[in-house]
Amino acid sequence: MYNICVVGYGGMGGWHVHYVRNCLQDVLTLSGIVDIRPERMEEARKNGIHVYETFETMLQDPSVDIVLLAIPNDLHRPYAERVMRAGKHVICEKPATLNAREFRELMDISKETGKMLTVHQNRRWDRDFLMIKDIYDKKPLGSIYMLESRVQGSRQVLNGWRGARVNGGGMVYDWGVHLIDQYLYMIDSPVTEVYAQLFGIYTQEVDDNFKAMLRFANGVSALIEVSMNCFILHPRWHVSGEVGTCVINDWDCNGKMVRLSDKEELKWDEKIVYTAAGPTRSMAPRPVETMEELPLPQIQSSNLDFYRETCAYLDGKGELPVKPESVLRVLEVMDAIFECGQTGQSIKCNI
Amino acid sequence: MYNICVVGYGGMGGWHVHYVRNCLQDVLTLSGIVDIRPERMEEARKNGIHVYETFETMLQDPSVDIVLLAIPNDLHRPYAERVMRAGKHVICEKPATLNAREFRELMDISKETGKMLTVHQNRRWDRDFLMIKDIYDKKPLGSIYMLESRVQGSRQVLNGWRGARVNGGGMVYDWGVHLIDQYLYMIDSPVTEVYAQLFGIYTQEVDDNFKAMLRFANGVSALIEVSMNCFILHPRWHVSGEVGTCVINDWDCNGKMVRLSDKEELKWDEKIVYTAAGPTRSMAPRPVETMEELPLPQIQSSNLDFYRETCAYLDGKGELPVKPESVLRVLEVMDAIFECGQTGQSIKCNI
Repeated sequence: MYNICVVGYGGMGGWHVHYVRNCLQDVLTLSGIVDIRPERMEEARKNGIHVYETFETMLQDPSVDIVLLAIPNDLHRPYAERVMRAGKHVICEKPATLNAREFRELMDISKETGKMLTVHQNRRWDRDFLMIKDIYDKKPLGSIYMLESRVQGSRQVLNGWRGARVNGGGMVYDWGVHLIDQYLYMIDSPVTEVYAQLFGIYTQEVDDNFKAMLRFANGVSALIEVSMNCFILHPRWHVSGEVGTCVINDWDCNGKMVRLSDKEELKWDEKIVYTAAGPTRSMAPRPVETMEELPLPQIQSSNLDFYRETCAYLDGKGELPVKPESVLRVLEVMDAIFECGQTGQSIKCNI
Repeated sequence: MYNICVVGYGGMGGWHVHYVRNCLQDVLTLSGIVDIRPERMEEARKNGIHVYETFETMLQDPSVDIVLLAIPNDLHRPYAERVMRAGKHVICEKPATLNAREFRELMDISKETGKMLTVHQNRRWDRDFLMIKDIYDKKPLGSIYMLESRVQGSRQVLNGWRGARVNGGGMVYDWGVHLIDQYLYMIDSPVTEVYAQLFGIYTQEVDDNFKAMLRFANGVSALIEVSMNCFILHPRWHVSGEVGTCVINDWDCNGKMVRLSDKEELKWDEKIVYTAAGPTRSMAPRPVETMEELPLPQIQSSNLDFYRETCAYLDGKGELPVKPESVLRVLEVMDAIFECGQTGQSIKCNI
């Protein structure tokens, strides 16, 4: 059993508080929250939550074991240091820091203090992602050589500090971090190329749309796209294997998987298709008898495993589910994306 | 009226012969064909077409005004030179040559001989493309900042010489050339960045799948994707404007166009959406009342305009529809794509 304090009682902080209080009573107890906004402190008190007067007061409470930081991105680096130096473990919201250099500093402090440093990379437990990972691992479509991962919406407005450059706003930090993390967690190979195009459509201050392409040493290609200005969505995932394709459309995991059927030896006449302005043989459609639809993998997952596995690690049982080394790689890829966005030049790397 | 000879009586050569004989009698007369394959010569004779014994014999026929080259890509450069030096105009199938250097040589020969050099970039007349160009030009979705153009199939086999490196096979040459040409024809701005990933899934000899990203000096981003191994297709076009999105699904031009409605000032509460592993405010769906569907542009087009406009140019009426300078730019972008495919490094350019 560990006592946890949530710092920042906003959207994500409220989410953490909810789970700690309602679903994780066997491993975690909520010590309270910290927030600097009087209305949020008031709201917490109304919800029966202990509110520390200040961050400093909380650090002085010896009963707090773990501090969860759900504060603007630029504050993770200094606050995480203070937490660890006060002798407490730290769970950061993502992105852990604004760049890899800052996170290496935190990793050094973690080693120096012996305190746990981890990051809420919760989307490793997303069901859509785990379905794709299952297909990547078990190869029902042969080896997967190309993946596309997209999160698109049309709100056009970045909420609060997420629109501010000084706070680490923008879509690379907000959603890119998840999509990169999922790829690095799934694909066991170093990233060797990063190319990205960043857009400021509704704000010039931060990126509100971006496209990035990664290439891994094993040859796998991975596209990431995040848009806040897309009115007709692409599927969440589009994945190409040597002998088939899988699409997952949405968070509800509707989708489809199609592969070459075993009856492929069936004669297939060479057809030419006449499009409006010319013939094409290479793009003639494949007869349906040569393909078969497979059921999508059935996957159960729970985002609570992040907390449970982290607590088990503190108990000396099992590994830390989100290791600092894996977080560092994500930040190194993000550094490369930002650099490419500024210079217009792809980055060769070994991340 | 011009006399035209079609060299190469294969898939594309047969297409040209068909149009010349059946639809273009007012501007063109078919002098005959040239082919080195006895079975194709026989087939032509059966179809009542004059067959020249050799390419050389045909060049010596003073009645031939225009020679159309529908032969493997690597032969365009030497054959086009011979045509122009024999005092005849030349129409090349695409890609005009295997690289920009070869095409510059042909441009010099065209100037030296005073003979017309043009390329059958017929997909400038594709209806789907002209619909997108109309939207790009007239801005019903505001300025277009990002386009995606895809041609995907699942045949997995490159037909004949299109699979051979020595002949200029592969998908960048076969389809990439069209999709690049369409972008350069539509977007009036220099290409400043090229990044590409090439794949050999079913053959190691040439690219059978590729993705390329261009960026233009005016900020527009353009993705090109061609695959011969895709079992669940993306739409042919996905286009993002400042205030809306357009999709064209297929060659039949089915699609959809959605933009912000004028009633946008309508109050829109800030909603948080709970996905399986976390909340998102930025990706909460937009209420349907704040969007409206627009009809797609109605466009008429005819691929015959390529021939008619080319003949009109020879008559001194109007401009050459496919100018060598525009073809050279396409080849320069293709050179950059191949270079990036080999080095893994994006190309900065001013094309």
